[in-house]
Amino acid sequence: MRTLNVELAERSYPIRIGANLLGQPGLIKPYVKTRRVAVITNDVVGPLYLDAFVAGLEAEGLTVTRIILPDGEAHKDWPTLNLIFDGLLGARCDRGTTLIALGGGVVGDMVGFAAATYQRGVPFIQVPTTLLSQVDSSVGGKTAINHPLGKNMIGAFYQPRLVIADTTALNTLPDRELKAGLAEVIKYGLIRDLPFLDWIEANLERLLARDQDALAEAVDRSCRNKAEVVVADETEQGERATLNLGHTFGHAIETGLGYGEWLHGEAVAAGAVMAADLSRRLGWLSDADVERVRAIHARAGLPVKGAPLGADRYLELMAHDKKVSDGTLRLVLLKQIGKAVITAEAPVESIRATIEACC
Amino acid sequence: MRTLNVELAERSYPIRIGANLLGQPGLIKPYVKTRRVAVITNDVVGPLYLDAFVAGLEAEGLTVTRIILPDGEAHKDWPTLNLIFDGLLGARCDRGTTLIALGGGVVGDMVGFAAATYQRGVPFIQVPTTLLSQVDSSVGGKTAINHPLGKNMIGAFYQPRLVIADTTALNTLPDRELKAGLAEVIKYGLIRDLPFLDWIEANLERLLARDQDALAEAVDRSCRNKAEVVVADETEQGERATLNLGHTFGHAIETGLGYGEWLHGEAVAAGAVMAADLSRRLGWLSDADVERVRAIHARAGLPVKGAPLGADRYLELMAHDKKVSDGTLRLVLLKQIGKAVITAEAPVESIRATIEACC
Repeated sequence: MRTLNVELAERSYPIRIGANLLGQPGLIKPYVKTRRVAVITNDVVGPLYLDAFVAGLEAEGLTVTRIILPDGEAHKDWPTLNLIFDGLLGARCDRGTTLIALGGGVVGDMVGFAAATYQRGVPFIQVPTTLLSQVDSSVGGKTAINHPLGKNMIGAFYQPRLVIADTTALNTLPDRELKAGLAEVIKYGLIRDLPFLDWIEANLERLLARDQDALAEAVDRSCRNKAEVVVADETEQGERATLNLGHTFGHAIETGLGYGEWLHGEAVAAGAVMAADLSRRLGWLSDADVERVRAIHARAGLPVKGAPLGADRYLELMAHDKKVSDGTLRLVLLKQIGKAVITAEAPVESIRATIEACC
Repeated sequence: MRTLNVELAERSYPIRIGANLLGQPGLIKPYVKTRRVAVITNDVVGPLYLDAFVAGLEAEGLTVTRIILPDGEAHKDWPTLNLIFDGLLGARCDRGTTLIALGGGVVGDMVGFAAATYQRGVPFIQVPTTLLSQVDSSVGGKTAINHPLGKNMIGAFYQPRLVIADTTALNTLPDRELKAGLAEVIKYGLIRDLPFLDWIEANLERLLARDQDALAEAVDRSCRNKAEVVVADETEQGERATLNLGHTFGHAIETGLGYGEWLHGEAVAAGAVMAADLSRRLGWLSDADVERVRAIHARAGLPVKGAPLGADRYLELMAHDKKVSDGTLRLVLLKQIGKAVITAEAPVESIRATIEACC
């Protein structure tokens, strides 16, 4: 088992990474405030892991409330969040109750937001079961639900007490979701870690074959990159926004098609290729650089073209993005491979040209 | 104009108290991050103050979005909160937008929670227009909405950048709401400031007659007391819970009758008398002390008996209270007049006896 400590002063927490961690409730016990926990999962992950996981916690002497949500990004909304509150209040869970998120990014984001707001804040633990959530949404304290007018529009910055990333859980992940997770892994290489990008290019087949050591390495290095960024900029005033490479285009795709049509990682992959194309138009990347970005995503089985929504619709959807500041659209682009910047320099004609060329 | 600074390190903020402050938008301008603000009010306060207030802000060069909510505690819920998000997203308000709450405690609590969670947090300013919100809910950063199973069950600790308490706005407050606000003023005397209680007893008629100087003094001393407590214990791990004198019984009354039947301050008044009665049963207060608590509330025109819900129903509702920790009901009681404690010592038979004697 590897351990990575995210250093955020009194909100610091460890990430445990390795095989068969779900079966070790002793890892969780020291991080539970009282004896009460609520395990929140969804109707896909629950049947696979919930019974054994809860039995382990109960064997450690904990009192467990179970809450099962419908699966999918389409349910990352208020009515589903309210199912968590209903379950907690129905079971009379008090302010000492620790919430445990068992599932992917949607479960993690929702449980984190529920923990941030239930009785004005209770502790929570992330047990991410998808590659995407292990490398991304379980690190950094971003929690949120969607609004019909925009993704992640309602949320909070709220840190977990502990993250358990069990690579064995990735064995039950559908291929499409594994690939979607790789989009975020590749992203860390692109924005700030060229040696890691080299490693991914050399080990992509092992990752696609779910080699446990390769997965642990990818999760570890991704989380280390993310943790470094988050520690430097917890509430996204600056550098942290570079983690959103591909996300502004990607969110437009997800919102434009309706949540759930494309997986988040798929939209981010296409968005990253679009960001590379736009970076080339600004003179920052070469044609070969753009091809390198396209090729690694294509080898991972990810989309390398955006959805054909039309440039006007893209621009309209992008104007709702959270990175819009005082009316100016700010994009994460690449100064070079391995170095992202946040910029408001891209002319709208160039953005339009990228959309038309890449969708 | 008086200014009180609430010292919370990088989240410190000033409270301005005095007459005719709503007409001074220059007080607000320095605390607005960008040029965008959204003023959120309700359909009772809006017609009285919104046009002039917005005109003042616009004259200062700010771009103002207006959002008007239905009035009342019954609307302190998710659908109404969502009207704020709809309004902000519809007007494309970005993360630099400052939310301004113009109204009573319900508006303040909801706008504060909206600010805490819109795009994971935007700045906000409180402009409380009721006595209750000026002395209580605008100080301390507690924000929340209600859930059908309990009051304030979903919320966050989130501090405003500025509070403007205009005593002139209290001239349009219905008598019943002025009196309800006095319940919280009296509370500060009871829990920690005996000289202030003496002052209230000596000046109650001036307060009821809306004497501006007396109101400013009451708001100032109440806010000072609250600020001292909040600074010492921002997230309510200890002393801050004493601010909830009367609230556990009071919340049971409000929930038991359905939100909106009694005003919050009315329920707190009856709850404070019940807490005094229970304190006497524990040997902490004399009969004369309890009569003093009863008399000041009665003189203020407030209820001094709880709603007749029956002891079983009270106990059931109180078990849902946020002050329940690890299954134990903790109550705020009085060791003496002017000194509150948080205790789990009250036997359930004594609580039952108090409910039966006081309702």
